[in-house]
Amino acid sequence: MRIDLSLAGTADPSSGLSAALEARETLENGTGPGAEMRGWLDLPTRMGDNELAAMQVAADTIRNAGALVVVGIGGSFQGANAVIDAVVTPFSSDLDIHFAGHHLDATFHEDLLNSLSSRRYAVNIISKSGTTLEPSVAFDLLWRDLSSRFDPDEIKKLVFVTTDGGKGRLLEFARSHGLTTFPVPDDVGGRFSVLSPVGLLPLAAAGVDVKALLEGARSMARVVRDPSNATVESNPALAYASFRIAARAASMHIEIMASMSPRLLGITEWWRQLFGESEGKGEDGIFPACLFYPTDLHSLGQWIQEGPAIAFETALDVVTDSDLVVPGGADSLCGHLGGLPVHTINRTIAEGALHAHSARGIPCGRIELERICEAELGALLYFMEYACAVSAYAQGVNPFDQPGVEAYKKEARKLLGR
Amino acid sequence: MRIDLSLAGTADPSSGLSAALEARETLENGTGPGAEMRGWLDLPTRMGDNELAAMQVAADTIRNAGALVVVGIGGSFQGANAVIDAVVTPFSSDLDIHFAGHHLDATFHEDLLNSLSSRRYAVNIISKSGTTLEPSVAFDLLWRDLSSRFDPDEIKKLVFVTTDGGKGRLLEFARSHGLTTFPVPDDVGGRFSVLSPVGLLPLAAAGVDVKALLEGARSMARVVRDPSNATVESNPALAYASFRIAARAASMHIEIMASMSPRLLGITEWWRQLFGESEGKGEDGIFPACLFYPTDLHSLGQWIQEGPAIAFETALDVVTDSDLVVPGGADSLCGHLGGLPVHTINRTIAEGALHAHSARGIPCGRIELERICEAELGALLYFMEYACAVSAYAQGVNPFDQPGVEAYKKEARKLLGR
Repeated sequence: MRIDLSLAGTADPSSGLSAALEARETLENGTGPGAEMRGWLDLPTRMGDNELAAMQVAADTIRNAGALVVVGIGGSFQGANAVIDAVVTPFSSDLDIHFAGHHLDATFHEDLLNSLSSRRYAVNIISKSGTTLEPSVAFDLLWRDLSSRFDPDEIKKLVFVTTDGGKGRLLEFARSHGLTTFPVPDDVGGRFSVLSPVGLLPLAAAGVDVKALLEGARSMARVVRDPSNATVESNPALAYASFRIAARAASMHIEIMASMSPRLLGITEWWRQLFGESEGKGEDGIFPACLFYPTDLHSLGQWIQEGPAIAFETALDVVTDSDLVVPGGADSLCGHLGGLPVHTINRTIAEGALHAHSARGIPCGRIELERICEAELGALLYFMEYACAVSAYAQGVNPFDQPGVEAYKKEARKLLGR
Repeated sequence: MRIDLSLAGTADPSSGLSAALEARETLENGTGPGAEMRGWLDLPTRMGDNELAAMQVAADTIRNAGALVVVGIGGSFQGANAVIDAVVTPFSSDLDIHFAGHHLDATFHEDLLNSLSSRRYAVNIISKSGTTLEPSVAFDLLWRDLSSRFDPDEIKKLVFVTTDGGKGRLLEFARSHGLTTFPVPDDVGGRFSVLSPVGLLPLAAAGVDVKALLEGARSMARVVRDPSNATVESNPALAYASFRIAARAASMHIEIMASMSPRLLGITEWWRQLFGESEGKGEDGIFPACLFYPTDLHSLGQWIQEGPAIAFETALDVVTDSDLVVPGGADSLCGHLGGLPVHTINRTIAEGALHAHSARGIPCGRIELERICEAELGALLYFMEYACAVSAYAQGVNPFDQPGVEAYKKEARKLLGR
């Protein structure tokens, strides 16, 4: 994974570097607000072989069920969803994976229950407290179905609980039914939890190589945490944070993260949650928006090219991919491109878009994965988490809390009147 | 379909109404730029019974193939994609539908070809000129596969072409192979074309009731085009346009369209394209962003609640849905909600979010569908198109061109060097 900021223009990262370096000090020394929630820094090395082996046993049991419903909301599901989107092909998968409880569409949940009601399936509920409204409702629906069809011993092979290690309604529930549990670490917030059991259990069940994912994150941690890597060139997370700090200083209100592959759409959504929830504080914070190129070049591309100049852009691209080539020949629509790899055209479109946008004055960056694989994704996730924490500290806010998320819950509880 | 603007706050639609009324005059009288591209106003009544019947024959032939790949980019696929997302359940569909050529991910296209290579499938390529890069590449790949496996007579039952009615590379190609063609109207731009054969053919193939969709659009056209409906109360499109005009005047740079159902995510993406490409001009134009509640309340909800106050919000909600209820009982996570319809909770969350956001000073609107069905969706699509044209004319730009989209194409062509 590398970052190219040669088209950063007015958001020249060198102008943001000193603020980024200061923020990194705050992060690494634990002198900022929320310092007790920095456990994610060590997640790539935290899980021992025994713990990983225990998780793999649960994952294999889940795979045997043939289908899995992951129940969680926000940070509890978006990390797993992102990595599954990226590396598990939708055209052939051993395990039929659904996500539920991150919304409460009644027809969706009814259809899901109907599609599952005549077969075995596993459930992994992920909730720190077990009292979050949306996943609790979805879990109750699935639990009623499973517990009416399977005996308690069978249920133990089907329902897996990821929750607080020591207390809470969900932990009590799991214990009373003898269910296998995995801990949500106390020192890690939801949006930083993908490399804990929160993300790793469903990923392992989906057939993702979680060891390679962790190894990728470890490699990135070594680079970005090394105090001697204190320049834009040597430290990609500092480079990205500095770029964002410079863009914010230039009154860019919106960051566009543009994926060049549908496989990376989940990653961009995870990124959106990570930055939006970490920085949207104190009447400040960049608005994160996910785009998908080239399709959105045929829509929001117009706004980027000729709308108000209040956005900067980061493209998420892949260096190496399938060698599928354009057929060419007379009996075709683009014979002149015959023999050219489709991926080369995709790369060229990314480059064309960044040149066109940058010529218009939009600061542009480019994050490149060598290929879409677990090791590169692990590096990317850690890189983004680290850059996010640095960026939020540079903005002067606590990167790890989310007081604003309580507001709608309070209103909803009041309206529900229970 | 109705719109509720009681929480509009500082973006009081009455303050934008006179500008909206003037813009409607420009639209209806054809006195503004792009007047020759107003054919979409009449699309709900344009197709005769014979044309609809011919399209249904093609749709039935496509259904017989068992699978369909829709090849198109931008406005050529997003309308069909949106309506299919909304009314065709992912858990049981007669027809396996894929979209291709709206991006050029090489692995995706290789996997798609592999998954189709041992079966029959239909292709509907949608391109005005047939020279747009991305769909042309995807089509060539599919065409090579089909033409190597099926004889020319069989191909005629598998490949359907939606393109310019009188000229162009794709029309020539279709004629030379005796393929059935459907016209892209000359007076309708891509993002306004969902109610033409561009959207209707794939929708009919997917089993969508296109007559009900058109009837819903007709009902809405009667309401919003009636000159005597000139108030915020009597005309939902004027109300929505006035709300947006007022929000823009209050320096709100971002509009959040928040769907309460995953079935409406495609609609919000279509909306984003519609408004972004129509308004992002003259260094002005609101940035359209799609959110999905409640899941994004656990992420961007933080930014909305405590970030910079530069956004306004429109929630897209549904009044009537499945009567699935929360089980309740002692052996559950939310027993206290037992017996409550899941949909009631979802509605309450929407209300809670809008109250919380509006209390913070975010102007909030709410678009409510009576239910998710063809008639309501037809009304919604027409409503949004009409409000968009009015809104863009009020901003002083041509709602129907997209000069900025050419910029990346030019750069990419230069880089491809062919």
